Amino acid sequence: MSQQLINKLCIIGVGLIGGSLARALKKSDAVGEVVGAGRDVTHLEKAKALGVIDRFETDITLAVKGCDMVVLAVPLGAMQSIFEKISVVITDDMVITDVGSAKGSVVRAAQSAFKTLPKTLVPGHPIAGTEKSGVEASFAELYENRRIIITPLESSSDYAVSKVISMWQACGADVVETTIEHHDEVLAATSHLPHMLAFSLVDTLAKMDAKNEIFEFAAGGFRDFTRIASSDPDMWRDICLANGNALVAMIEKFSDDLQQLSKAIEKNDSVYLKDVFSRAKKARDEFCDN
Amino acid sequence: MSQQLINKLCIIGVGLIGGSLARALKKSDAVGEVVGAGRDVTHLEKAKALGVIDRFETDITLAVKGCDMVVLAVPLGAMQSIFEKISVVITDDMVITDVGSAKGSVVRAAQSAFKTLPKTLVPGHPIAGTEKSGVEASFAELYENRRIIITPLESSSDYAVSKVISMWQACGADVVETTIEHHDEVLAATSHLPHMLAFSLVDTLAKMDAKNEIFEFAAGGFRDFTRIASSDPDMWRDICLANGNALVAMIEKFSDDLQQLSKAIEKNDSVYLKDVFSRAKKARDEFCDN
Repeated sequence: MSQQLINKLCIIGVGLIGGSLARALKKSDAVGEVVGAGRDVTHLEKAKALGVIDRFETDITLAVKGCDMVVLAVPLGAMQSIFEKISVVITDDMVITDVGSAKGSVVRAAQSAFKTLPKTLVPGHPIAGTEKSGVEASFAELYENRRIIITPLESSSDYAVSKVISMWQACGADVVETTIEHHDEVLAATSHLPHMLAFSLVDTLAKMDAKNEIFEFAAGGFRDFTRIASSDPDMWRDICLANGNALVAMIEKFSDDLQQLSKAIEKNDSVYLKDVFSRAKKARDEFCDN
Repeated sequence: MSQQLINKLCIIGVGLIGGSLARALKKSDAVGEVVGAGRDVTHLEKAKALGVIDRFETDITLAVKGCDMVVLAVPLGAMQSIFEKISVVITDDMVITDVGSAKGSVVRAAQSAFKTLPKTLVPGHPIAGTEKSGVEASFAELYENRRIIITPLESSSDYAVSKVISMWQACGADVVETTIEHHDEVLAATSHLPHMLAFSLVDTLAKMDAKNEIFEFAAGGFRDFTRIASSDPDMWRDICLANGNALVAMIEKFSDDLQQLSKAIEKNDSVYLKDVFSRAKKARDEFCDN
């Protein structure tokens, strides 16, 4: 029997992200057994029926037992209680990572749960996903050519960092390392702020009188623009709570620029308007081709 | 020879919108001859080579001669000078419509050019398009099952209104009527405001230090969200100038709600956050299925 990258993997939270990771590792034959963990048995049974996991446990301490890799793919608000359960049974060869969209809060949760941060803990964040959620939406190709940001800690061992990198590479992903602070600032800008704008816009329109008609008059551009407003509300509440400082700072920066734009519209300042739109179009055309 | 809906059609501005209209009418055999008009001969030659138009003129007064349908598919800022040229040669059986994204400004331009609004003028606005522009991007199916808003004037004759409706129906579109004011308010909400948010966000990020890296960390949701920021800067400058009042009012309404959201994030008000995100997700899931 050939030695696999991961002998026994525990995915805590078998949704779109966790389920796709399990599928990808199985597809590339990089994992032995996959144990799913979570609170909802019906959900875990579905994941097993889909072949995403091999078996499941609802008790976290049982689920992680004997695992050489544990991935927390749960909302940010659930991280600390799971770390606390793991802390009772953690071993030196149990590598632990997560997929949370904010990293400072995950490290604070781990600090609080473990007291001393384990050498095997390496926080991570796959820049991948869709507005869909749930294991039904998971697919093995989700991480192909996508970026995974890992934020190794001072406490992280080379062995653990290397194993987490190898795991994501086995899914076809491109792994980059950065600091907690930098990750949280960049994500506030490119992900958390756009989600706030999309959620807030749809809510503003839904509160306006002619609600149904307004949405009826919306074109394809609006559909694309607001797609992220169909994301999971619990997950996004948690992200706001976890990365509040960086996010509020970005909202402020954005609001200042939007006010300037609004003033330019009021003053019929066609040069200013053309400049903003041209710079934005140029920047976007440079970084994406559709 | 069978009688066609439109004997001789003049498209002024043969880009994505005008070109797609010509293609759709030709495909459904609803038009005899299609005359393209514009300033750029190279562009018009390309439109002719693509079979979108049958011939072209750079002189508007020559282009519209003998036409029973004239469609202005030019940026809003160009409407008035074209109306002025048409006013010299307009006849009672020359139906005139436009595709401008704001309607109040088009009527003001017509009023100024014609002095007395012609009975044959029926302003319109197809709620269709992509972030692409130019005749190369045009295709016959652009209007299929899409909504066309027409805003007939008190001066518009039944004949002209009915002919404009029939033209769009021949393209497979769904035509609805509303008032100028209502059109401009609804479009400020569903189209003009989202474009401002997308342009402004991309510009804000592009001005930040780590520019390239920031865009590198952007995920698929960001690509969708900012797609409309790749739209034509000239067209959007004109829309801002044309629909400034309604747009500034919408930016203000949106900004107030965004500030509330920002305060809720600052205060860790998880109930408020969950409420906004849930309402937005529900509203969006109801009006679009992807």
